[in-house]
Amino acid sequence: MLKRLLHSAPRDRWEAIGDRFAHVVGKDGVIRRKEELLTYECDGLASYRQRPALVVLPRSTEEVAAIVRLCQELELPWVARGAGTGLSGGALPVEDGVLLVTARMKQILATDLDNQRAVVQPGVINNWVTQAVSGAGFYYAPDPSSQIVCTIGGNVAENSGGVHCLKYGVTTNHVLGLKVVTATGEILDLGGSVPDMPGYDLTGLFVGSEGTLGVATEITLRILKTPESICVLLADFTSIEAAGAAVAAIVGAGIVPAGMEMMDNLSINAVEDVVGSGCYPRDAGALLLVELDGLELEVAANVERVAGLCRDNGARGIQTAYDAEMRQKLWKGRKAAFAAAGHLSPDYFVQDGVIPRTQLVSVLREIEALSDRYGYRIANVFHAGDGNLHPLILYDNSVEGALETVEELGGEILKLCVRAGGSISGEHGIGADKNCFMPDMFSPIDIATMLAVRQAFDPKGLANPGKLFPTPRTCGEAAIARKNKLSEASVAAVEVDLF
Amino acid sequence: MLKRLLHSAPRDRWEAIGDRFAHVVGKDGVIRRKEELLTYECDGLASYRQRPALVVLPRSTEEVAAIVRLCQELELPWVARGAGTGLSGGALPVEDGVLLVTARMKQILATDLDNQRAVVQPGVINNWVTQAVSGAGFYYAPDPSSQIVCTIGGNVAENSGGVHCLKYGVTTNHVLGLKVVTATGEILDLGGSVPDMPGYDLTGLFVGSEGTLGVATEITLRILKTPESICVLLADFTSIEAAGAAVAAIVGAGIVPAGMEMMDNLSINAVEDVVGSGCYPRDAGALLLVELDGLELEVAANVERVAGLCRDNGARGIQTAYDAEMRQKLWKGRKAAFAAAGHLSPDYFVQDGVIPRTQLVSVLREIEALSDRYGYRIANVFHAGDGNLHPLILYDNSVEGALETVEELGGEILKLCVRAGGSISGEHGIGADKNCFMPDMFSPIDIATMLAVRQAFDPKGLANPGKLFPTPRTCGEAAIARKNKLSEASVAAVEVDLF
Repeated sequence: MLKRLLHSAPRDRWEAIGDRFAHVVGKDGVIRRKEELLTYECDGLASYRQRPALVVLPRSTEEVAAIVRLCQELELPWVARGAGTGLSGGALPVEDGVLLVTARMKQILATDLDNQRAVVQPGVINNWVTQAVSGAGFYYAPDPSSQIVCTIGGNVAENSGGVHCLKYGVTTNHVLGLKVVTATGEILDLGGSVPDMPGYDLTGLFVGSEGTLGVATEITLRILKTPESICVLLADFTSIEAAGAAVAAIVGAGIVPAGMEMMDNLSINAVEDVVGSGCYPRDAGALLLVELDGLELEVAANVERVAGLCRDNGARGIQTAYDAEMRQKLWKGRKAAFAAAGHLSPDYFVQDGVIPRTQLVSVLREIEALSDRYGYRIANVFHAGDGNLHPLILYDNSVEGALETVEELGGEILKLCVRAGGSISGEHGIGADKNCFMPDMFSPIDIATMLAVRQAFDPKGLANPGKLFPTPRTCGEAAIARKNKLSEASVAAVEVDLF
Repeated sequence: MLKRLLHSAPRDRWEAIGDRFAHVVGKDGVIRRKEELLTYECDGLASYRQRPALVVLPRSTEEVAAIVRLCQELELPWVARGAGTGLSGGALPVEDGVLLVTARMKQILATDLDNQRAVVQPGVINNWVTQAVSGAGFYYAPDPSSQIVCTIGGNVAENSGGVHCLKYGVTTNHVLGLKVVTATGEILDLGGSVPDMPGYDLTGLFVGSEGTLGVATEITLRILKTPESICVLLADFTSIEAAGAAVAAIVGAGIVPAGMEMMDNLSINAVEDVVGSGCYPRDAGALLLVELDGLELEVAANVERVAGLCRDNGARGIQTAYDAEMRQKLWKGRKAAFAAAGHLSPDYFVQDGVIPRTQLVSVLREIEALSDRYGYRIANVFHAGDGNLHPLILYDNSVEGALETVEELGGEILKLCVRAGGSISGEHGIGADKNCFMPDMFSPIDIATMLAVRQAFDPKGLANPGKLFPTPRTCGEAAIARKNKLSEASVAAVEVDLF
């Protein structure tokens, strides 16, 4: 019967297919109306859009497995989606495909405070984990900027980072075990509740695989004790060189801040225009925000050391904040930096690349040179401690050809990161956005090996096709295709996830 | 010509094959004489022995690739070996196979102190890395007990831990990148010098794969700043329950010691018999060794807190040591514990399992019950902080049937660990020793997925066959086969790696 369905007229076919999925998840678990499907046509990378044929909303591992097996049977491509806050188009739907949305899988299944574990469904919001355990003095460390909206499932797919990953590591360092449904509909239990299980580390393989191996349906997270004391230190410098030297000195002294962020003059002014907190001196060449946590006396000692190292490297002024409200005030500008960029120009393009920390100053100078050459202003806001850059290219999308030029400039920045010994993505993932840059970083045999591993989980290539790995299309062709589809991407839609 | 070689008489055949390998690595790079091959017939798990047909000693990635491609062409199984200190038979040769020994790949290729990286060949001894960078105030954290002998390549294969993995993590947390030769002879560059590269985490997949995916030929390690201050605290308790409660209290207070070890009364007395330092009270039910590191005032504060928590939980006496010599004195007994067990009885069998830390006391009681039931004494020495148990079963191998019974008892302990939510190996690996227990921990589909991943690297299954994954042979059959091959395994040969 199904083979027949596939050959019937498109609308009838999808009606019949929808009924099959409704049989699994209930009528209210399938979205088929065109206007409702519009909500799902893009994620945080709003410049790529594609309406899915069908959205399916499972509640359990078993329902996910049944959905995936049905996709396998009908040979339908499918894409998993959490909150859709990703910035690389990882949750971009596939034409004539199914979008599996985890919005109804929002249960925290268990917490074990003694062993510092929590088991959650993929649709659980990142921030909820901390909320569930903070009363007892615990928290979940990875904190992407979108943490009040984004889901743990999405964090697992993208191996999300955040401000605190300098000290605490990214998502993969906090996932101990996974129940996953592979693209063939098999249910696997990877890892467990104790770390470093024997056998291949398939948990680590799965985290960051961007939905190309399957879907995680239960995630065992490590939770940490809330530190006794936290201090945020803001230091302002007359130049990026001086701030970069301070970063080098702090790391060189063996201090591991919880986070260490840098903003350049353009970002500082953008932020002050919008937030107007008065905390950030408008004439500074760069500022550093350093968060230190630990025992009270350890934090106090480290604050002294960091302040001394900043002064040694030319800091003009240093502010410190211990209480939560004051800390938030110092962080506020940094957190608003991307949104503020939207006020500097009609549109902006955010890049995400990594360089070895020691190359910071020289790479920033090269970015400056690229900015001059292309004639677009670039604001720099980034995780200085781990060399994760987020250059914001300011432009006006209504100008013919501007987006294409800006994308080219963004690509030049990525290639610069690779040449400096770094990487084409720090925390936003590859998705549909950067797969054409994968060959700049990986040899054909490296990529072939990844694809061979993929085969083990997804022989038919139905799970999130066209993402992560380069497709035969060149970057140029992809850009043209995208341009033709580009609808009115609003900056607002993206802002929620930017940090 | 080669096909002909394979069908000629065995000795001639291996002579001709040896010449082929000599063509790659030079005449002095091939060992073929029976008496010289004897050295390589076992690793630290001396109860499994098998002489290889040939030992080959490459010097470079290219030579490794040429060796592996030759094995592929001749369809020869091959096994990689570092120092051979492993305790699970991971480097046990294969009959009619090649042993690829990394003893001539001992170069530290680069150190980059600013970015805290070192790039080494696989034959580099673990301890050399620290020696190379300690003058500048750095060290390499993973410290298996065999660190003055074992190689980084072996550490990568086994994902080795050590006393300090409680705070600093195991090998996989310190490997950023790998150049590997896959079983098909391809050279891959996995990861890099910046952490969390995009694409599948094949670096993480490779670490701990026990030589079944290929050989690492260049390893990029993360090196850490030497802590400002280190203190070792020894607390003695009248019971295991009390010591276990102290462990729970320390972890519960959010303190993360660099290491936290426990020894029971039998181990304490064994150690005092041999080392006689007088530091360990013979009438203690259990003792804890807690190492704390960090800033001077942070360590001082944490020593106070840990001492207080130990006293609250019934510690009778507490000793602390800050200077290196005194610290070594307190550690000495712990480090000699396994060797000392050899003085309590003619032979001993060391088990390696993991349990959730909160199950410590109840599992130790169950081990005690098993000891009574089987009539063998069991000494317990273990990494209490992360629940990694090392029960030492004392026996006399000259008694008919003793080894078989002890192996059965060891298996019961592993099953107990799995039932408690733990794992069949903490840090010694699966190898040839525990592969028959894999089905106790992984479902058939979990194992099938690992094997499918293996296919991507080693379609012919030539790299370290018979290890890690269960073979059609049942445990019982394997034990019989092993018994028939068992030669005079000396305790001394094993002691070097025990901790």
